[in-house]
Amino acid sequence: MALRDGVVVGAPGSAGVCGTRFVDLPEPLRLDCGRSLEQVRIAYEAYGRLSPAKDNVVLVCHALSGDAHAAGWSDEPEAPSAVDGFGADDRGIKPRGGLGWWDGMIGPGKAFDTERYHVVCTNLIGSCRGSTGPSSINPSTGRPYGLEFPVITVGDMVRAEKRALELLGIEKLLAIGGGSLGGMRALEWCVAYPDTVRACISIASTARLASQGVAWNAIARNAIMADPDWQRGDYYGTGRSPTAGIGIARMVGHITYLSAESMRQKFDRRLQDRDRYSFTVTEPDFAVESYLRHQADSFAGRFDANSYLYISRALTYFDLARDHGGGSLERALADVSARYLLMSFSSDWLYPPRDSQELEAALRSNGKYVEHHLIEASYGHDSFLLEEARQAPIIAAFLEEVMHHG
Amino acid sequence: MALRDGVVVGAPGSAGVCGTRFVDLPEPLRLDCGRSLEQVRIAYEAYGRLSPAKDNVVLVCHALSGDAHAAGWSDEPEAPSAVDGFGADDRGIKPRGGLGWWDGMIGPGKAFDTERYHVVCTNLIGSCRGSTGPSSINPSTGRPYGLEFPVITVGDMVRAEKRALELLGIEKLLAIGGGSLGGMRALEWCVAYPDTVRACISIASTARLASQGVAWNAIARNAIMADPDWQRGDYYGTGRSPTAGIGIARMVGHITYLSAESMRQKFDRRLQDRDRYSFTVTEPDFAVESYLRHQADSFAGRFDANSYLYISRALTYFDLARDHGGGSLERALADVSARYLLMSFSSDWLYPPRDSQELEAALRSNGKYVEHHLIEASYGHDSFLLEEARQAPIIAAFLEEVMHHG
Repeated sequence: MALRDGVVVGAPGSAGVCGTRFVDLPEPLRLDCGRSLEQVRIAYEAYGRLSPAKDNVVLVCHALSGDAHAAGWSDEPEAPSAVDGFGADDRGIKPRGGLGWWDGMIGPGKAFDTERYHVVCTNLIGSCRGSTGPSSINPSTGRPYGLEFPVITVGDMVRAEKRALELLGIEKLLAIGGGSLGGMRALEWCVAYPDTVRACISIASTARLASQGVAWNAIARNAIMADPDWQRGDYYGTGRSPTAGIGIARMVGHITYLSAESMRQKFDRRLQDRDRYSFTVTEPDFAVESYLRHQADSFAGRFDANSYLYISRALTYFDLARDHGGGSLERALADVSARYLLMSFSSDWLYPPRDSQELEAALRSNGKYVEHHLIEASYGHDSFLLEEARQAPIIAAFLEEVMHHG
Repeated sequence: MALRDGVVVGAPGSAGVCGTRFVDLPEPLRLDCGRSLEQVRIAYEAYGRLSPAKDNVVLVCHALSGDAHAAGWSDEPEAPSAVDGFGADDRGIKPRGGLGWWDGMIGPGKAFDTERYHVVCTNLIGSCRGSTGPSSINPSTGRPYGLEFPVITVGDMVRAEKRALELLGIEKLLAIGGGSLGGMRALEWCVAYPDTVRACISIASTARLASQGVAWNAIARNAIMADPDWQRGDYYGTGRSPTAGIGIARMVGHITYLSAESMRQKFDRRLQDRDRYSFTVTEPDFAVESYLRHQADSFAGRFDANSYLYISRALTYFDLARDHGGGSLERALADVSARYLLMSFSSDWLYPPRDSQELEAALRSNGKYVEHHLIEASYGHDSFLLEEARQAPIIAAFLEEVMHHG
């Protein structure tokens, strides 16, 4: 046990001091676009002990801007990316240590109980947090890929992490789970590798984004590409990166993660550090305006703009029915063997409960086991990260049941 | 009667061939920010005959990007702005002739019946469609204002158009009406000049934008200001203007005007001119992505970015309770004498029905006459422009009643 930044690390409830590790795939990764990706590296973290029978593995999947550091405490400045020393300073990506993004859910006695389960979290390909992505070095040029990076799909992400787990000696999963894009990856995995997963936990997710979600993502990508500092993706090492564009993208994303009601509660029309209007067009007068600028600046400092483009593209391409069922969600789910736990949140308008209801119906019509918990919560899509206490017992009970189900 | 572009002009139902005219205010306009605006010009159009008693005037108010050309047919290339010959080519603003933006509602026998009413539409100050705005020439420098233009409020807009009407010999209004920002102007007018208006028609509008609406507007403004071609607003005559930034702003605005359901119906996940994914991050694959780019390009060609900033700022500042009631909407509405017709649309999440319900409650608690029609419609905020047939009989009956009410 140690004390770091006032947090007792290794204390009961903590997954302890962790470190991001790496797996290098020995062969090229075949991609849905028809191309292959060479020298693929997958960053991951793992918590809890792998059972001798290797039957207690839970893979947790992060969302768009997440990383492998899901739980416990990390002292590392950040998962080193292949581009380190090339353009990292230009991208201005800052250290991200501290607690894992799902620490409230992963640890001894938590929903994903590390005293029972071996919890693994991989960083998805396309990202900039340790796994191969557009900021990685292209082996054929010796420079970062930029737009030379092939477009990847959720299917490709899953294929890469499946292979990484095999190389770690893991062939089967007790469960796979995540929220948002993480939920998409869980859904995809269970269809792509039906015999390897016993349980699927898909939270605030969907089998395919609806038109409005496609549009928000398109706006975010256009904002990045409209920034002249994007330089058609070839900004590494130039001393300029599209911080303004990714800032706008983040602002758009951020509002779609909240609900109108939670914004009303949090900000209303409160002014920021003033009691009358500034009567300027340039200053942020309202608290919500200051907040958005802060979110934009902070995100621009920690996330690679090209990674945003590629992951956003993968998100919008994802379509379980189209990719696996010739357009039919029922057909896509016909051969899955996992038990499903779906959770959705009443105020989530980006991944609305209706999408989980469609999944539920398609699973039921195939006679599959599915639980759908529609949770009344006001935080919009962000509920999946903020309402941990309400999800934890549901997940714990579901995993318990899966374990005993044989 | 004449035939223009296949439309019979001057035919029954048409307000005929119109032209935009101008009123120059002889004195400076006092503004809420404490400054004054010199040499204010107001563009307007008028339809139908002014009665000898001058008691049949209806002022219709356009929304953010509208103009004075509300009805009938216009051959004019566009309302000439003061900046013509200075930077118009750089701004790339295109002619906008054709039918008026509310032609379905204004004309002989229509909701705003030009056989009975003298319908006037003014272009708001701050705009770029004929009235004085940030692209107008600053008399003290001989160059376009840019950011030297003072920040204006909805109150300022109303004060300017009130004065313009006086100069046209109009002291009283039978009614004032509009949607969105146009509805805000109608609400403001009836509070600012309670003895001059007999009826208020506020459609898809609000007494103040909620936090989420403030946020969308902030994102749009940030997108414009993040574009290096914005040049801190001093882009006129430079050969560069923030077309990319205003394009992003328009995309954001556009999605907030639609509903998720109407987008699903219109676009779903349909691909545009292709049957498989492009596997690029740069191409618009989905129909909704193409549509957004088209909207962005078209808007950038016809609207001045600084005008967008100023009008967006005015929109977010508008707060009837704060400005006139010390924070109380009831108090703000205590002295109005107009009869109110409020209309809201079930799928409008930008100016939600709840906002009209609050107005209704505040008016009722003051014992004022108010009708609130919550119309079931799927087009979101855009319903106010698209669902004309459902609004027309309500407006016609309301105006009839106001006329007879004495």
